[in-house]
Amino acid sequence: MNMYDIIYKKREGHALSKEEIEFFIKGYTDGNIPDYQASALLMAIFFKKLNKNETIELTRAMMNTGDVVDLSAIQGIKVDKHSTGGVGDKTTLIAGSLAASCGVPVAKMSGRGLGFTGGTIDKMESIPGLKTTLKPEEFISLVNNVGLSVIGQTAEIAAADKKLYALRDVTATVDDISLITSSIMSKKLASGSDAIVLDVKFGNGAFMESFEDACRLGELMVGIGKAEGKNTVALITDMNQPLGYAVGNSLEVIEVIETLKGKGPEDITDLSLTLAAYMIFLGQKAVSPEEGFKKAKQALDDGSALNKLAEFIEGQGGDPEVINRYALFPQPACISKIYSQEDGFIGSIEAKIIGLASQHSGAGRATKDDNIDLSAGILLNKKVGETIQAGELLATVYGNDHRRVDKAALEAARAFHVQSSKPQVTNLVKKVIQ
Amino acid sequence: MNMYDIIYKKREGHALSKEEIEFFIKGYTDGNIPDYQASALLMAIFFKKLNKNETIELTRAMMNTGDVVDLSAIQGIKVDKHSTGGVGDKTTLIAGSLAASCGVPVAKMSGRGLGFTGGTIDKMESIPGLKTTLKPEEFISLVNNVGLSVIGQTAEIAAADKKLYALRDVTATVDDISLITSSIMSKKLASGSDAIVLDVKFGNGAFMESFEDACRLGELMVGIGKAEGKNTVALITDMNQPLGYAVGNSLEVIEVIETLKGKGPEDITDLSLTLAAYMIFLGQKAVSPEEGFKKAKQALDDGSALNKLAEFIEGQGGDPEVINRYALFPQPACISKIYSQEDGFIGSIEAKIIGLASQHSGAGRATKDDNIDLSAGILLNKKVGETIQAGELLATVYGNDHRRVDKAALEAARAFHVQSSKPQVTNLVKKVIQ
Repeated sequence: MNMYDIIYKKREGHALSKEEIEFFIKGYTDGNIPDYQASALLMAIFFKKLNKNETIELTRAMMNTGDVVDLSAIQGIKVDKHSTGGVGDKTTLIAGSLAASCGVPVAKMSGRGLGFTGGTIDKMESIPGLKTTLKPEEFISLVNNVGLSVIGQTAEIAAADKKLYALRDVTATVDDISLITSSIMSKKLASGSDAIVLDVKFGNGAFMESFEDACRLGELMVGIGKAEGKNTVALITDMNQPLGYAVGNSLEVIEVIETLKGKGPEDITDLSLTLAAYMIFLGQKAVSPEEGFKKAKQALDDGSALNKLAEFIEGQGGDPEVINRYALFPQPACISKIYSQEDGFIGSIEAKIIGLASQHSGAGRATKDDNIDLSAGILLNKKVGETIQAGELLATVYGNDHRRVDKAALEAARAFHVQSSKPQVTNLVKKVIQ
Repeated sequence: MNMYDIIYKKREGHALSKEEIEFFIKGYTDGNIPDYQASALLMAIFFKKLNKNETIELTRAMMNTGDVVDLSAIQGIKVDKHSTGGVGDKTTLIAGSLAASCGVPVAKMSGRGLGFTGGTIDKMESIPGLKTTLKPEEFISLVNNVGLSVIGQTAEIAAADKKLYALRDVTATVDDISLITSSIMSKKLASGSDAIVLDVKFGNGAFMESFEDACRLGELMVGIGKAEGKNTVALITDMNQPLGYAVGNSLEVIEVIETLKGKGPEDITDLSLTLAAYMIFLGQKAVSPEEGFKKAKQALDDGSALNKLAEFIEGQGGDPEVINRYALFPQPACISKIYSQEDGFIGSIEAKIIGLASQHSGAGRATKDDNIDLSAGILLNKKVGETIQAGELLATVYGNDHRRVDKAALEAARAFHVQSSKPQVTNLVKKVIQ
C-alpha cells in the first residue's frame, strides 16, 4: 500500500478501504506521509467526497491516533454538547449548567476560538482563577461531585486532527462535510461521553452558509455517532445574527450569568433551554425532549442552574463571586460606540462581520499562537427586529488598544442593516435530527 | 496576494490571473510557497482545469524561472523536436540527422528516461566517449559546423519544472493537459529554437491513452507555441506497440544506425521521415511538408544523414566507429528469450508492458536517482501483424543481472497477444495539427 495509489484512487472517484484510510491517517500522524501528499488527498476528497462508510472509517482512524478517555468512573449517562462554532455562542456554559442541575453528568472537553468564532475555553479563562486544565482524576471527581466540568482538549485526543486541521486550514480544504464530521466526531468519540447533542449552525456566521448543507452535516454526524453506539442528536440552528448581545470573552460570560439569572436575551435563553432539553432527554432524566425542556426551565427559574454554575466555577478554582460582581472580570481600557444614521428596524446584523470585528478588537485570534484580550469584544445594543432611531446606539466595542478598537468599530458598523419594515424574527432552531 | 486565496479561487473554478500564476510559480520555485500548498493547487487544477490563457501564463511563468537560451549565434531557422515519450522511441537521433543533413540547424536539449519511457540523453550515453554536457559555446559551434547537437537539459532551464514535476509525480497530478503542456513548452520555449515539431503519442505506451486526449494536448501545445511566436506543429502518433524492434539504450542506438543505413524497421523509418519532413518545412528548407519528406528520403537514401550522425557523434566526443562496429557498445552478460506458445498473427504488443519490462531488465529508472544498465533492454523479434508459430522467438531480453533479466522476460511475454486473423496495421501518424 502506498500513498500515491490512495491519492490516485480517490482522485478517480473510488471509495477508499478501511485499510487505506488507516494507512493514511496513521502514516500522516506518525510523520511518514508528507504534508504534500496529504494535502493532495484532501483536495481530491474535497472534489470526489467520502461516502458514509469512508467517513466512519476516517473518524475511527483519527480517534485511534490518540487516547480514548475512560469516563466509566462517572456514574450516570454522560452527555456531551458541541457547537460547530458561531458568533456570540455561549450556550455550552448555560446548557451545561441547566443539564447538570437536572442530574445529567456533563464531562466536556472544549476548544479555543480561531478566526471569527469564539471558544468556550477562552471564555472560561476570563473568570479569575479558573483553571481549564485539570488532572484526569480531578476532572472525574468534579463531574461526580458537581455534575459539570469543562476542560481544554488535550493533545492526546485524536492527535491526527490537530495536524490535519492545520493543513486543511492553509490548503482550502476545510469546508468538506466528511472532513468536518471526522474532525469533530473523532474528538467527541474519544472524549468518552455516552451521548452527544450537536448544535449545527448555518448562516453567514457559520462554517455552513446554507440550511441544506448544515442538515447534511448534521445527518452525517448523527449517523456516525449512532454507528459508534452513542445516542446523538443534532439541532440545526440559525447563525445569521450573533447569539445574544455579547461577543467577546468576559462580555459573553457576563451574559451567561445574566441568562442563568433569568435576565438573558430571548434567543440565547431559548436555544440554551432547547439544547439542555435534549441533553436531559439523552441523559435519561426526562422521557421526552419536551419534559427535558420543562425540567431545564424549572432549573432556570428556581436558580438551581445558577447555583450549578457557581459550584462549577469554584470546583475549577475560579472565584464564584464574579456572579455578583462583574467588576472582577478583566476590564477594557478603551471603548468605541457605534450609532445608527437611520430610523427604522434592524433588518439584519451580519454575524461574520461582528465576529471578525470582535476578533480585531483583540477578542480573537488570526492564528493559533496569537494572544487574546479577554476584556475585548462587542456588546450589541440592538438585535434584528428592534426599532432604531438615527443617533441611537447600535453597539459598543471594547478593548485595550485604541487603534484596534476604533478600527473594529468601523468594521462592526457595516454589519448592521436598517430597513423601513419590521423583519420577521423566527425561532433559531430550524430542525432536529435524531 | 496569498497562496490560500489562489488555491481557493481555483478550487471554486475561477480562472487565475497572470499575477496569481506568477506569484505561485515564482514563490514555489524560490521556496516561499510550501509543497503542501502547491500540491493542493495542482489537485484543484486537475479537477477545475486551466483555460488556454492560464496555460499560456503558466508556461511563461515557468519559462521565466530559468535562463532563456540565446541561439542567435546560430545561422538559419533552428528547429526543435520533442516527443511526449514512448517505448522504443529513438526518432530524435534519426529525424535530427535527416533534418540537419538537409540544412536545418537542430540545437536540441533532451532529457533522461523515467519509468517505462526512455530518454535520448541516456541512449546517447551508450555511445563510447560521447559527452551530453557541452559548454554553451561548444554547443553553438557544433550546430554551426555540423548542423546537429543534442545535450542534456541544464538545471537553469525552467527551474520551476523540475521541482513541480517531482511534486506532481508523487501526488497523482501528472496527467493534466495544461500541466503537461506547461512542463514541455516552458522548456521548449526556453531552449531558444525558432520552430518546434511535437510528436504527441497516444495509446497504452503513452501518457495520453486516447487519441482524443492526445489531440487536445497537441492543439494546446501548438496554440501556446504559436502564441509565443514559434511556428509549431504536432503530429499525433500511435504508441500502442513499441516503436521499431529495439527497446533499451544501446539496442536503440544500434537501431538508429540501422535505420540511417536504410535497413530500419518500417514504422521507425516512416515516422522519422515524417518528423524530419516537418522539421525541414518549418526550417524553410522545403516549401511543403511533402517536399520536406522527399528531401529527407533523399538524405536517407544517399547516406548523407548517416554521415551527419557520424559527424554529430564525433563532434560530441564520441567514437563514430560504433556505426560500423556494434561491439563497441556496452555488452550485456545475460540473455533471456521468450517464445510463442501459439500459432497465428501478432495481434498486439502492449507497449507499456514492454517499457516496464525493459526498465526492470535494467534499462530504465524507477526514480530519478537510479543507475541504469546501458546494455539492457528488449529486442522484439516480431511486430504486430507478423505471423508467428508456436516455439518461435518473440523477443530477447538483455541485461547484466540474471534475476532481473529472467523476471523481465516473464513480464515481457505478457505483452504479446496472438490471434488467428491478421490485424490491420495502419500508419502511425494519425493527425497533424499545425
